[in-house]
Amino acid sequence: MKPSTSSFNEVKKAIVLLSGGLDSATVLAIATAQGYECHTMSFDYGQRHRSELDAAVRIAEQFHAKTHRVMQMNMNAIGGSALTDMDIAVPTGGLSETVPITYVPARNTVFLSYALALAEVVGALDIFIGVNAVDYSGYPDCRPEYIAAFETMANLATQAALEGHKVKIQTPLIHLSKAEIIQQGVALGVDYAKTVSCYQANSEGLACGQCDSCLLRKQGFREAGLDDPTPYAI
Amino acid sequence: MKPSTSSFNEVKKAIVLLSGGLDSATVLAIATAQGYECHTMSFDYGQRHRSELDAAVRIAEQFHAKTHRVMQMNMNAIGGSALTDMDIAVPTGGLSETVPITYVPARNTVFLSYALALAEVVGALDIFIGVNAVDYSGYPDCRPEYIAAFETMANLATQAALEGHKVKIQTPLIHLSKAEIIQQGVALGVDYAKTVSCYQANSEGLACGQCDSCLLRKQGFREAGLDDPTPYAI
Repeated sequence: MKPSTSSFNEVKKAIVLLSGGLDSATVLAIATAQGYECHTMSFDYGQRHRSELDAAVRIAEQFHAKTHRVMQMNMNAIGGSALTDMDIAVPTGGLSETVPITYVPARNTVFLSYALALAEVVGALDIFIGVNAVDYSGYPDCRPEYIAAFETMANLATQAALEGHKVKIQTPLIHLSKAEIIQQGVALGVDYAKTVSCYQANSEGLACGQCDSCLLRKQGFREAGLDDPTPYAI
Repeated sequence: MKPSTSSFNEVKKAIVLLSGGLDSATVLAIATAQGYECHTMSFDYGQRHRSELDAAVRIAEQFHAKTHRVMQMNMNAIGGSALTDMDIAVPTGGLSETVPITYVPARNTVFLSYALALAEVVGALDIFIGVNAVDYSGYPDCRPEYIAAFETMANLATQAALEGHKVKIQTPLIHLSKAEIIQQGVALGVDYAKTVSCYQANSEGLACGQCDSCLLRKQGFREAGLDDPTPYAI
């Protein structure tokens, strides 16, 4: 791999991890507003909520992402999460204080690793990810100290970094409440009706209204004082 | 994901990244000799040298790996390497002093991330990878400082680490010459005729004898004073 040095200088480029959910759609809006040429990445990892992949395409188009990629990966060969293992039920009994069963082992590490690879190829110095340490405090890989450690590692991992092109992991949502995220996204033109947060949305993209992700989303709109445009199944 | 604490204590488990090449076969032999229950992982990432995937299966069987997984990933959607991009030729003009075109962006970071996910699921505290800082000095993600930074990040990334189950990235070959690797492997019963190192082995698994990987391998057997059992096409 020989990324030409010039590819890093032409224009300000970013890789944006885009799940198709509320948070990552807001992140794409923020990166776009900051003037980045955005290259979006989604992951088809055998998740239950596959309609979010369609949502990601709609959102990438809305914000004129330069490129959009869907990475295929058989995470179900690893297992261990209710989001990829069909034998484990998604809990609907309210938010838990410990790491939820919907935690996918090392997911953000895997996703950021792919983003790092793409950053080197397209010549991007910024990787945007919609992690949040407020609502998702139960996830170890959403914490600022984890993100900082990934960035340190990333800057030893690539030929681009050795040549002085340091990469930055951008986490614009990390300290925001869900209500603040929604308010920022609405101000930047995000149409949240296009996003899918539900862990078990049905094939038409209708949200269950009961999983952790739906509960957080409902609460966010309520606290933001905004109508929730989410299409719920019930 | 809730790995039970007991799963970390039953038996000494390791994830071993197994490409099917000379180095990783030796690593599996070393981990097995050290008494680990080994869970091997290969990656089908659109590489030219696909016969190495068959070699990995043969080697995993020989050393009685507890489980073997092939992770599917469309790295060619990212591109940028002669190993995954069919429009870039594999160089055969001798070893280069800079990062070779066969470097795959962030490859070890992606592979180790998957290994980290599997380690958490099976309850392994050790991840073995056959990186080498001597022969592959051109690859940034084969250096000890990179491996150390990955380990630091990994121990912030998972629920298992938060519960005190620290993971260790084991690199038993990192300071060995190719000849020393071969000598160690032969002593541990590795049948190198079963391994495939060539970057462009043909469909019968015959090596080209001319790419960087073949040149290093030939030189290693010569310096070890051992016959090279590799089936070369020419």
